[in-house]
Amino acid sequence: MLKQEVNELLTQTGPGTPMGDLFRQYWVPALLAEELPEPGSPPVRVKLLSERLIAFRDDDGDYGLIDEFCAHRGVSLWFGKNEGNGLRCAYHGWKYDVTGQCIDVPSEPEERGFSQKVKLTGYPLVKIGDVLWTYLGDPEKRPTLPEWEFATVPADQTFTSKRWQECNWLQALEGGIDSSHVSWLHSGGLKSDPLFKGAKGNQYNLSDMKPFFEVADAPGGLFIGARRNAEEGHYYWRITPWVMPSFTMVPPRGDHPIHGHLWVPIDDENCWVFTFDYHPVRALSADEVQAMKDGYGVHNEYVPGTYRPLANKDNDYLMDREAQKRGETFSGVKGIAAQDFSLQESMGPVVDRTKERLVSTDAGIIQARRRLQKAAAALRDEGVIPPGVDPEHQKVRSASVVLPKDEAFIESSADVLKVRPGVAQASV
Amino acid sequence: MLKQEVNELLTQTGPGTPMGDLFRQYWVPALLAEELPEPGSPPVRVKLLSERLIAFRDDDGDYGLIDEFCAHRGVSLWFGKNEGNGLRCAYHGWKYDVTGQCIDVPSEPEERGFSQKVKLTGYPLVKIGDVLWTYLGDPEKRPTLPEWEFATVPADQTFTSKRWQECNWLQALEGGIDSSHVSWLHSGGLKSDPLFKGAKGNQYNLSDMKPFFEVADAPGGLFIGARRNAEEGHYYWRITPWVMPSFTMVPPRGDHPIHGHLWVPIDDENCWVFTFDYHPVRALSADEVQAMKDGYGVHNEYVPGTYRPLANKDNDYLMDREAQKRGETFSGVKGIAAQDFSLQESMGPVVDRTKERLVSTDAGIIQARRRLQKAAAALRDEGVIPPGVDPEHQKVRSASVVLPKDEAFIESSADVLKVRPGVAQASV
Amino acid sequence: MLKQEVNELLTQTGPGTPMGDLFRQYWVPALLAEELPEPGSPPVRVKLLSERLIAFRDDDGDYGLIDEFCAHRGVSLWFGKNEGNGLRCAYHGWKYDVTGQCIDVPSEPEERGFSQKVKLTGYPLVKIGDVLWTYLGDPEKRPTLPEWEFATVPADQTFTSKRWQECNWLQALEGGIDSSHVSWLHSGGLKSDPLFKGAKGNQYNLSDMKPFFEVADAPGGLFIGARRNAEEGHYYWRITPWVMPSFTMVPPRGDHPIHGHLWVPIDDENCWVFTFDYHPVRALSADEVQAMKDGYGVHNEYVPGTYRPLANKDNDYLMDREAQKRGETFSGVKGIAAQDFSLQESMGPVVDRTKERLVSTDAGIIQARRRLQKAAAALRDEGVIPPGVDPEHQKVRSASVVLPKDEAFIESSADVLKVRPGVAQASV
Repeated sequence: MLKQEVNELLTQTGPGTPMGDLFRQYWVPALLAEELPEPGSPPVRVKLLSERLIAFRDDDGDYGLIDEFCAHRGVSLWFGKNEGNGLRCAYHGWKYDVTGQCIDVPSEPEERGFSQKVKLTGYPLVKIGDVLWTYLGDPEKRPTLPEWEFATVPADQTFTSKRWQECNWLQALEGGIDSSHVSWLHSGGLKSDPLFKGAKGNQYNLSDMKPFFEVADAPGGLFIGARRNAEEGHYYWRITPWVMPSFTMVPPRGDHPIHGHLWVPIDDENCWVFTFDYHPVRALSADEVQAMKDGYGVHNEYVPGTYRPLANKDNDYLMDREAQKRGETFSGVKGIAAQDFSLQESMGPVVDRTKERLVSTDAGIIQARRRLQKAAAALRDEGVIPPGVDPEHQKVRSASVVLPKDEAFIESSADVLKVRPGVAQASV
Repeated sequence: MLKQEVNELLTQTGPGTPMGDLFRQYWVPALLAEELPEPGSPPVRVKLLSERLIAFRDDDGDYGLIDEFCAHRGVSLWFGKNEGNGLRCAYHGWKYDVTGQCIDVPSEPEERGFSQKVKLTGYPLVKIGDVLWTYLGDPEKRPTLPEWEFATVPADQTFTSKRWQECNWLQALEGGIDSSHVSWLHSGGLKSDPLFKGAKGNQYNLSDMKPFFEVADAPGGLFIGARRNAEEGHYYWRITPWVMPSFTMVPPRGDHPIHGHLWVPIDDENCWVFTFDYHPVRALSADEVQAMKDGYGVHNEYVPGTYRPLANKDNDYLMDREAQKRGETFSGVKGIAAQDFSLQESMGPVVDRTKERLVSTDAGIIQARRRLQKAAAALRDEGVIPPGVDPEHQKVRSASVVLPKDEAFIESSADVLKVRPGVAQASV
Repeated sequence: MLKQEVNELLTQTGPGTPMGDLFRQYWVPALLAEELPEPGSPPVRVKLLSERLIAFRDDDGDYGLIDEFCAHRGVSLWFGKNEGNGLRCAYHGWKYDVTGQCIDVPSEPEERGFSQKVKLTGYPLVKIGDVLWTYLGDPEKRPTLPEWEFATVPADQTFTSKRWQECNWLQALEGGIDSSHVSWLHSGGLKSDPLFKGAKGNQYNLSDMKPFFEVADAPGGLFIGARRNAEEGHYYWRITPWVMPSFTMVPPRGDHPIHGHLWVPIDDENCWVFTFDYHPVRALSADEVQAMKDGYGVHNEYVPGTYRPLANKDNDYLMDREAQKRGETFSGVKGIAAQDFSLQESMGPVVDRTKERLVSTDAGIIQARRRLQKAAAALRDEGVIPPGVDPEHQKVRSASVVLPKDEAFIESSADVLKVRPGVAQASV
């Protein structure tokens, strides 16, 4: 349970808010690379941390992420036309380069240099892996580029999708930290989803519905261990890393690719969920990629032409009570991803955390909130760079392992929770 | 005309408001029984008096009406799964029985009794007739179950439907109290509707467009008499009972079934209208039931799969100007029910009663408001149980009678305005 | 750039606001005459200057514009039935004449004269040309009827359409004052639109993308001259008149009809745009009228059955990136009108003028705002009747002329900027 002011602090990320300032310390995913596929690609509207922006790519292929609205009269640059080294506003032809610098105001004599005095807010936009990343903070303090393993393995080993989720980022993130719901909400998917089924670990998941949770601090955030009974004298551990502010990974299953999410605030009542699936040491198979594109695993089907899930709150998530009755799905909603966001959205745009009743399995959520609150305070009061900015903090993996009962998961798994180039994930 | 503060007092029914407290003294209709047809029926979202609730039926067939949101993290129990003696939240499997008592928190050791300490708000849900009734007040003061005649006659003598109306409950109720609009708004329907036409009384209605109104106090509310000229030396009286807070009956026509409504606040800008049709002494005919199902009489056609009327504000109530011109309908809207709610919704979500200009035919409305205001004050200030709670107050009927000019309607009709088992309604 | 309080002053036109009071000095277009085509035409909902009104036509053919809501209980008179000399409310039959005077309350004895004491707000509604005009101000100060040339030429020389635009009236008007955007936004249309192409002047427009602006005061508002290079020693001048508060005309092209707009606030976030096309001395050709009906020139295509443009913000204005790439359209949006309103709407419901950066080509906009602000203050402080009320102020034309470089446009064009009956527009 949180006090109302703490709930507001953690959920509000607009300019000038403490949590908004915290998010502005990090590189965050802004778009999928596929949204700006080639030089001269049309501009795309992007809202991040409550800022309305335009992403575009000039004819040299350079990426820009700038204020959505022309400095002149406030028209949306979404209607703009790509032209050589910049984007021209459709109203009077003012032209901006990828940094937001105005480089032409046709009505003004060039010699007076008017355009040089006009600059829109502009943020860097950098392709790493399948994602275009941005940093919305102070340019002087721009950190090293992100080095997440999913974004840096060879292209044929990784796949990323995104979805629009209609609730605050934090209750979406909390779903990623909380692996205790898997045995319930996703019980159907464990048996049938092509990207989930077949792993030995699923058996432990389904046979022990009462996992015990242990949470360990990590330099960048947390490792959350969920312990279930395994063979005589052993535990099956599923270990979820959370790296601040909003990176989580699902513990792996057999030789399946590993998946995870980055939860990015659009505004205080919506977020983007960037969802990746990669394998550290092998290419994804054609079947695996097809299944991801088809919305299996933690990916989504979409309303055509959008990143809005096909099952959404306007259609009651295509609720199928018969499938629920037959036990094919636990909540009546089809698909791992839709199962998650349907419930998270049902909490309301921003869940009222003054009313919740947390239990032992929520230990990860409780500690993550505390870390966020502490980091926001340290940044505000002492200018402390928060955990997760340092790329070394990002080099983590999830793991699923069977350990003797007397071993501490965080010590026994220390190695496998690190990115080890050329070495596969630890997975059961 | 009301002062703004009185308008707010009468129209606001959320928790803690005076009128909300008043409504919480009564059994009110929550759902149709058909919405939870069998043991294990899926949960249904219900909003009543601004409270968001879930109705469900466990595998024993018991009915429950509890807080919509799981006590744990606030997920909607609409996604829950019926399982034996309760409803399991789809997120982490917390289970609640029909009283709202938590009976299982899978992650917590049973021996510690954690679940026993968790209880959601829960209200009784009782089937009487075709309706599931609830009482949202203090359990200690729960009154006797409702005994309305329409809900207690044999099943083949009664039919109930409901509709969602997109305005405050009071302006909907006021339409039920005000029978002076019948000669105008419903003039077309009196001639053509299978559940209205053919009665002798209609002739009086259509030939005397200027009824005179008399209002008499009743233990549970009011009797509103509308007097029209009949044969030499006689008046035709249509008598509408209103029982507090929101039960009204339309005066009958010939041997047609009698109909009426219960107007139930969803929130301050929406209400449920429960609409019944019954005959005190005979079964409804197959044709009558079919006509009710087809939306004739005071019933509705629906947007498929919902209780939203097919003609609604998004489609301008299927306005047919040609039919209006031809005189088939007076307002251009088809159907008695749609004629009523289209006009009531056109007043806005909550009509501004500081601007109205009431006349003599509004006497019933004026007195009903005063009774509501008085009862809310008596409850608040002295804890007085309001009229209409006592089932004896509920045993009323509407009537239509022809009386000699010198007889007072309320005295001459005293008998026929009471429920008389085995005796038909007084109807012309 | 404006201070926030000035932006609010200029954009808010509800009852009691300074700009609302200013607008209430003028005759403004309320509907197209086609919306009330014949005696007894059904009532039409009209919102103007934030007032909700009903327009109707009684059986004598007289026009009325009265409060939308019945004085009795607040029902919308849109459901009313035309009956002889008035409109009867569908609820209880109260009847109003075209002035808003109640002329029948059926339930009340006529001899008591109750209905005479009931009067709804009513405004005059007068057909001049294809438009129904109203005046929402003090009846005592009602000015002479409007005498715009487009509305007073013979019927076969003029055509008027209207559209709903989803933004504040002022940013729509500013698009009409600002002719500097033509070379950019409408560059495609100048070459292909049947109502634009073929004029010699287009060549100057497209070859000199950097017009110079001069603004001259006029009794009713402004003349805004846009100067482009023409043949040796000459300038091509396009002259746009603005008459207060919201009349603008596009400079003409060759022998094409002249077009212009009247921008009328619906409320503070929506406006009606009345768009006319007329020729001072000849009938419009069948092809021209067809092109106007088909949405060419400055007219629109519509969502069937409405005055909402077919290309609108819900469908991203049917953005066609391929056409934009091929250079057929500059903004990707098809049609001169849609090009304008798409950009104006993209500024938001009310653009934040504290953030704009105006340049020399915005001189007309700057001066128009000053004139509006000044006139509103003079009206408020000293009761001064504002410019544009006097019909003499309305007798202006736009013009496009080629002048020797040393001539001042406002002096050399003084004659051609006036309405000269029987003389064609000055156009290149």
